[in-house]
This record gives sequence, structure tokens and C-alpha cells, in this order.
Amino acid sequence: MTTSLLQVLNRIEPADKSIIELARKRQDALTKPRGSLGKMEEVSVRVAGMRRCITSTFDNRAIVVMAADHGVVAEGVSAYPQDVTRQMVSPFLNGCAAINVFAHHIGARVVVVDMGVIGGFEPHPLLESRPIGSGTANMAKGPAMSRKQATDAIEAGIAVVESHVARGLDIVGTGDMGIGNTTAASAICAAITGRSAADVTGRGTGIDDKQFLHKVAVINRALEINRPDSSDGIDVLAKVGGFEIGGLAGVILGAVANRIPVVIDGFISGSAAMIAYALSPQVKDYLIASHLSVECGHRIMLEYMGLQPLLLLDMRLGEGTGAALGISLVEASVKILREMKTFEEAGVSDKDAES
Amino acid sequence: MTTSLLQVLNRIEPADKSIIELARKRQDALTKPRGSLGKMEEVSVRVAGMRRCITSTFDNRAIVVMAADHGVVAEGVSAYPQDVTRQMVSPFLNGCAAINVFAHHIGARVVVVDMGVIGGFEPHPLLESRPIGSGTANMAKGPAMSRKQATDAIEAGIAVVESHVARGLDIVGTGDMGIGNTTAASAICAAITGRSAADVTGRGTGIDDKQFLHKVAVINRALEINRPDSSDGIDVLAKVGGFEIGGLAGVILGAVANRIPVVIDGFISGSAAMIAYALSPQVKDYLIASHLSVECGHRIMLEYMGLQPLLLLDMRLGEGTGAALGISLVEASVKILREMKTFEEAGVSDKDAES
Repeated sequence: MTTSLLQVLNRIEPADKSIIELARKRQDALTKPRGSLGKMEEVSVRVAGMRRCITSTFDNRAIVVMAADHGVVAEGVSAYPQDVTRQMVSPFLNGCAAINVFAHHIGARVVVVDMGVIGGFEPHPLLESRPIGSGTANMAKGPAMSRKQATDAIEAGIAVVESHVARGLDIVGTGDMGIGNTTAASAICAAITGRSAADVTGRGTGIDDKQFLHKVAVINRALEINRPDSSDGIDVLAKVGGFEIGGLAGVILGAVANRIPVVIDGFISGSAAMIAYALSPQVKDYLIASHLSVECGHRIMLEYMGLQPLLLLDMRLGEGTGAALGISLVEASVKILREMKTFEEAGVSDKDAES
Repeated sequence: MTTSLLQVLNRIEPADKSIIELARKRQDALTKPRGSLGKMEEVSVRVAGMRRCITSTFDNRAIVVMAADHGVVAEGVSAYPQDVTRQMVSPFLNGCAAINVFAHHIGARVVVVDMGVIGGFEPHPLLESRPIGSGTANMAKGPAMSRKQATDAIEAGIAVVESHVARGLDIVGTGDMGIGNTTAASAICAAITGRSAADVTGRGTGIDDKQFLHKVAVINRALEINRPDSSDGIDVLAKVGGFEIGGLAGVILGAVANRIPVVIDGFISGSAAMIAYALSPQVKDYLIASHLSVECGHRIMLEYMGLQPLLLLDMRLGEGTGAALGISLVEASVKILREMKTFEEAGVSDKDAES
């Protein structure tokens, strides 16, 4: 582990419980039955604890979308050709992909990062190039990357988020693009939770029953050959991860070290969160799950980290699409604390206070 | 049934299936795996069918919040005193209730309507007064209202929404305030679906086990005494409904007659939707369920109408809070159709088209 990653891990502190209690006290005093806004109340008090402030504002929002290729695609685990990873980066940069639409809808900027897409890109003002390699190696035949590449990927993610913190960043969402990366995410989930590959593997972008069984077999082979150490997030990432997954783990760690709420997207972002969580369990205090993906392993990941999704949209796109929609909900939740009045301020009877 | 309500029912037409197919064709051609945005895709094509236009805009949004009192509160079914209905209207008008915060967050105006709050109100520029009576009668002892009052309530709702259609209205959310109205909503749900009162009754704004059993007993008594005719929405409303529930049913019917998408909130709005649906099943084409309430009967209502919620927030406040958050999602879904490019337009390989 390099000094830079260690430094970030050392800076991570749990959320502030005393601010959480103050925020909860205010939530309980607002003109509504206690708890009646459910998870929205919970999110608002959690954000208070992250930010050390009862009511935050979110003037600077970003979705960091990281793209990379996966050597395991050679095993035929994906319905799409590998080149689609590279092709899909153009719409992100041109502003016409799904994530651009949702990010624009909620007023967030989209940060596109090449973490290792085969073929690379011409320089583009909106593209951050931090490739760790030209796609990972095939995890079904050996480690996806070296241990050094794994830490490099995480540190690249830290560098990306810290550069945006320097520009101003109040909340961040994570997103991904990488043909084959549901295979990596399933392998990470199985490695860390100990669940079987079949339990945590879904249909990705659309494969049939036969392809599904093949995908499970490939994941099992990758786990058998590489034997990732579940207690070592770097090892899991190196053996069965991806460059964009490592980068997103770094984005999460860097954001958390700066006390910035991280709204995670679906299954791939979940696997990045699992890596970050393995490296520093306190990360969990800063994670907000946006939606529940149709990828069956996603629910297992969220339960493992003790997170509850806000949206039930049956999405499985990635790109940060769920995270973007989630950011708007986080903001709405915090506005409740800021803009609503208490029963006392509004002069309305409070049953809860009386009882 | 009066002419006015009949006229509106006669104007209701199903959504346009040919536009739905065109919208679906465009969704399928956009630069993402088919179906990968899940319910967001479904909502966008449904809205196209409602509006007769593939990509709508939502410049004019409103949340209609209707308030009324319930005679059944005399049976001790609620944790809050009846006067809270009247007291809570002030925060709505002052802009500091939860619904104001969420409505402001998504850029919607809040329309507050007195449908029959005990004590009434001084005139206020933001309050529409359309009281049907000074609270309903106690449904545990007889009908909550007369058949004429039931149609009057629905027609008042129609008049409210039509006045806003005249000003400009592209999408509407429903909301409620009425101490005791979960009792009415449960009774409506039981009457229409045939499920037992215990199956469709929740804890409202916070009652204990003993109070819960009492609430179920009161609902059973109301159903036994009144014997609402499940095939007659007006009869169900009159026997076990509420003025705000009738008003919201009218808002739904009036919006649907004008081909305006209706985003319904939680359990009370769901009961209004059930009344509207009983009067005209085609209403369903225009209903979008926002969130799944913690009130257990809500899921039963949504399943009965074939609707799927978008948000899983464990909310139980009402006021239209879930509807407001849902409107933002509806808008985001339609922006996908409008702003994303197709594979062909973006020059990206389309696996789905090839296969």
C-alpha cells in the first residue's frame, strides 16, 4: 500500500454522532408525525453527520463516470462486443448519454475518466485520462491486474476526486462503463461476502440462460485460480476487479476523507464501495445507496454494508444514472431540515411531544 | 350521477397505443441496452401515450393538496386530535410544510383546497374553499356522507383541476391532509378489493397494537353497517370515504379527461385513485404511482390497479410528498426520450438491433 492511499485511509473519520443527534432532534420537531418521511429523514440526519452541519447545501455536484475494459470479455461473458466500452465514452463527452440527461436534470456535472479503455482516446477537454493499462487481464486465467495496478487505480480515483474537491464539491455520485464489468462485480461480491457465484450473478446487459451458466462458471474459475483474500480489499481488486472499479473505490475513499456524501449507483459502483469498505469500514457512514439494481447481487452488497436503496426502478444501466436521481433525493431530504418549521415555530399541536 | 361528472367520464379515453409504440421504438433505439432504464423507460412511453406526443415538457406542474375532517375520529382511531387537520393547513399556505419543500424542490405549485375542514378558514389568496360539509359523519354509525355530497366532492375536484388546466397544467400530483383519513382509505380498499380490514389497515400516523385492533374493528363496523357496493365508486365514497378523497378522485378524473398525467401519492391518494378507477377503469392509463407507503394497504391498492411504485422511501406523511418526488422522476424519464441519441445517431454498435 503506498503512502498516498495510506494517508487518505488515515484521514477517514466516522460521521459525527452528536450532529446526527441534533439533526434528528430537529427532524422530530418538524410539523409532521415523527418518522413519517421515512428514509428521507434518515438520509438528512446522516448527511448532517457527514458534513458536520445540520443543513448542508449542494451547490457543487458531480457524477464521476469511470470507464475501463475487462480481459474476461475473452471468455464470452458479455452480450456486447468489447469495443462498446470505448464507443460509449463519446456520448458521455457529447452530453447525450443517459447519465448526461439525468445529471443535467439534477444540476450535476459529469466527470468522465478513462481508467483503461482499449484503444484509448484523442485528448478531449471533458475527458480525464488516467489509464492504468489497456484493459485488465483475463481474471479467468490469472489476476486481473497486479497489486501495484490496483493501488494505482485507487490512487487515480483519489486524485480525480481531490481535484474536484479543490474546485468545489459538495456531493458526488459514482458511475461506470465497462463491457464485462458485471462479471468483475459479481466476483468481488462473492469474494467479500462469501456467497456463491450463482447467488450474486445476474444477466448483465442481457444474456440468456446458457450464457448465464457460463458466466457463473467463469466467475467460479476466476475465484478458484486467484483465491482473493476477502480481508484485503486491494487483493480482491487486483485478482478479480477492474480499473474503473478501483478508480471508483478511490473516488469513494477520497470523498469520504473530505467528508463528502457519496451516492452510489448500482452493481458496479456497489462493488467499488465493497472494496472501499473493505479498506475502511467507516466509509459506510458516508455512503448513500440510490437505487436497487435488477442485478441480484446488488441487494446482497447493500445488505452487507447495511445500506437501504431509495429508488426501485428496475434499472441496470450503470453510468451513474441511479446515483444522479439519488442526489436529487438527498438534496430534497436536507431541504426538509432547512426549510420546514417545527411544531413550536408553526403553532401546531404536537402529539409526539405531548405523549 | 350529475351531468357534469357524467360529461367528464364520457370524455375519458384510453392512452394512445400507437404513440406508445412509437415512443417504445425510440426508447429501444437509444444508446443503452434495451430495458436497462427499467421503470423509467416504461413511464416515459406511458406518458407519451397519455399526452399523444413522444416527448412532452412539464412547464406547469401542480400538487393539489385537499384537506377535510372525518367523523370517524370520534371512534378514537387516530393518534392526533381532529383539530390538527385545520392547524396543518396554515403551514401549507405559509410554504413551510413538507409538501411545500418538495414542491419547491421540483418546481411545482401547491394548490391547497378546503374540502370540509371543521371550523373553516379565513379567506386566503392561496386557499381554494370548496367545503362539502363540516367534516364527514361517523362512518361507524352510518354513511360518511350522502350520495349527493359524494358527487359534489368529485365535481369540486374536477372544477379545481379544470381551473388549473385553464391556467396551464402539464402534470399533476395528488396530496391530502385529514386526521382519520387512513381509516377511510382502508375501508375503501377493503370495500373495493374485497380484502379483509385487517389486511389493508396500517398504523396511520402512529398507533399501538391495541389501537390498531380497535381501528380494524371500527372499519369492520363501518363496512357492516354501510355495506358499500364495490361496483359503484360513488356508493363506496359516500359510505366510507371522505370529502378530500372524493375531491382527489375528481382531480384525477378531471386531469385524465384532459390527458394529463396524474402522479399519485400514498395511501389516501391511492384510495381516491381506487374511486376514480371504479368510475372509469381507463383512468389507470394516466396514473403513475410515486412511492410505496408503509401503510400496508397501499401495496394492495397499487397491485389492484396494476401500478408499480418508483420510490421506496418508507414514507407515510401524505400531503403529496411522494407525488412531488415522483413528478421529478417522470420528467427525468421523458427527458431520456427527448435528449438521448439513438445508436444510429451516435454511431455506436447496437447488439440488440443486430440480434
